[in-house]
Amino acid sequence: MTPVMNATDLQAFLARDFGQVAADFTVERVDGAGVCLRLKVAERHLRPGGTVSGPAMFGLADVAMYLAILSRIGPVALAVTTNCSMDFMRKPAAGQDLRAEARILKLGKSLAVGDVLVFSEGVVEPVARAGLTYAIPRATG
Amino acid sequence: MTPVMNATDLQAFLARDFGQVAADFTVERVDGAGVCLRLKVAERHLRPGGTVSGPAMFGLADVAMYLAILSRIGPVALAVTTNCSMDFMRKPAAGQDLRAEARILKLGKSLAVGDVLVFSEGVVEPVARAGLTYAIPRATG
Amino acid sequence: MTPVMNATDLQAFLARDFGQVAADFTVERVDGAGVCLRLKVAERHLRPGGTVSGPAMFGLADVAMYLAILSRIGPVALAVTTNCSMDFMRKPAAGQDLRAEARILKLGKSLAVGDVLVFSEGVVEPVARAGLTYAIPRATG
Amino acid sequence: MTPVMNATDLQAFLARDFGQVAADFTVERVDGAGVCLRLKVAERHLRPGGTVSGPAMFGLADVAMYLAILSRIGPVALAVTTNCSMDFMRKPAAGQDLRAEARILKLGKSLAVGDVLVFSEGVVEPVARAGLTYAIPRATG
Repeated sequence: MTPVMNATDLQAFLARDFGQVAADFTVERVDGAGVCLRLKVAERHLRPGGTVSGPAMFGLADVAMYLAILSRIGPVALAVTTNCSMDFMRKPAAGQDLRAEARILKLGKSLAVGDVLVFSEGVVEPVARAGLTYAIPRATG
Repeated sequence: MTPVMNATDLQAFLARDFGQVAADFTVERVDGAGVCLRLKVAERHLRPGGTVSGPAMFGLADVAMYLAILSRIGPVALAVTTNCSMDFMRKPAAGQDLRAEARILKLGKSLAVGDVLVFSEGVVEPVARAGLTYAIPRATG
Repeated sequence: MTPVMNATDLQAFLARDFGQVAADFTVERVDGAGVCLRLKVAERHLRPGGTVSGPAMFGLADVAMYLAILSRIGPVALAVTTNCSMDFMRKPAAGQDLRAEARILKLGKSLAVGDVLVFSEGVVEPVARAGLTYAIPRATG
Repeated sequence: MTPVMNATDLQAFLARDFGQVAADFTVERVDGAGVCLRLKVAERHLRPGGTVSGPAMFGLADVAMYLAILSRIGPVALAVTTNCSMDFMRKPAAGQDLRAEARILKLGKSLAVGDVLVFSEGVVEPVARAGLTYAIPRATG
């Protein structure tokens, strides 16, 4: 499916509507499968020992899937996360950026489902995976 | 990673150790990424209306991941499922076989994590997805 | 919230609409919180070693939540499971019945969410837990 | 089971080992079932519109379960989250504190499993629920 918003559109959307966190993220790629989003890891994302915190990884996966949905349906809808199941598999490298590969598996009228692999710079295998469901509000006339 | 059991090995393992359900499944492919397993859908897998039941889809995903782990570590270990998070996205076609593509994402000393996409013959997009964790018992001397 | 179907109503519903599996289940209790459902464990629910299989536990949790939803909204709707995340925590006792305590946490217009604890006769602590989401179809005029 | 750390102990542990986030949380209660933890909601936890963000709710559930485990096994172990499945059910009240009720369902030698209900001040029903698994490192001699 052809995206209706590209990486520049999504980055501008983040800056406008999510000013608080927009600077944390770079939209690296948008295509028919989904979105690649980078988390520019900073001090506030770290746990003692220098590893990226669980909430920071959750936030990355959540925003990546949100942007993947918007890339398909445009910036009008107010989708909300209803479920996220996340497996934390490996410790991310200390102080390195994370990259989320979000893939849409279903884009229905009321629910969107997808999954995300999270990679840490310098680690070949994924550090986390997530399955996410978003509720898409009905359009009103 | 190179599998240590191939499709024939896994099918023989099922027949010997899971006689009750072995006839339901065909191991279609084993490779470095994981396993493809077919559920030969029969009357007992169906819900009213002819669609495959949730437990049958869960069972397919669970066995597919189990076999993917065994393909890597051999038939000795007694791995047990500790978590499964499954999204049911589309109605499978009535009375058609299902196919599970299981992929191993982490194979640690005590935990293995992977995900599964479930396809219904004649439906292009996946009907379900699952993330699964297995506990692998410690070898004892 | 007051149930609109009691245990007898739900048992009759199962027998009529889910003839294939109805004999496996006994509705033990329905109240404002949810439903208690018993799985009468038989040979076909067992894995080698006599323990209840994962799919049988999944099926029990799924039917228990389904009946809990129906107890609130009546037998008209055709709710479908969209997500189930299940933790398998302990081995059920060999050949003993299982009991599911299903609790509704949200009953919205389009989504219902709840959780389930699964107990094995003779084991004090729960053997499994699940969180489930059901999509509730819109009523049509 | 009797806790080995009480609310004061856990609060001191947070302050010492998680200085970055300790000020966000108040341990309200520790008992044999688990822990009640309050998130003192501040600007940085909010999404546009004033509602608490998903990552903030995830972080609350995660820390609550972590403290519940430590209340049982003491401050020595370095438990890590391996899985979290979370349902977001209702919008939290704008700018109000959240309260997590974490309950331990299994405390094994290598895995701990529990669930969490998240409440928003002024909303009767829970706004979110989560099931979490932690890996507990083996003690070394």
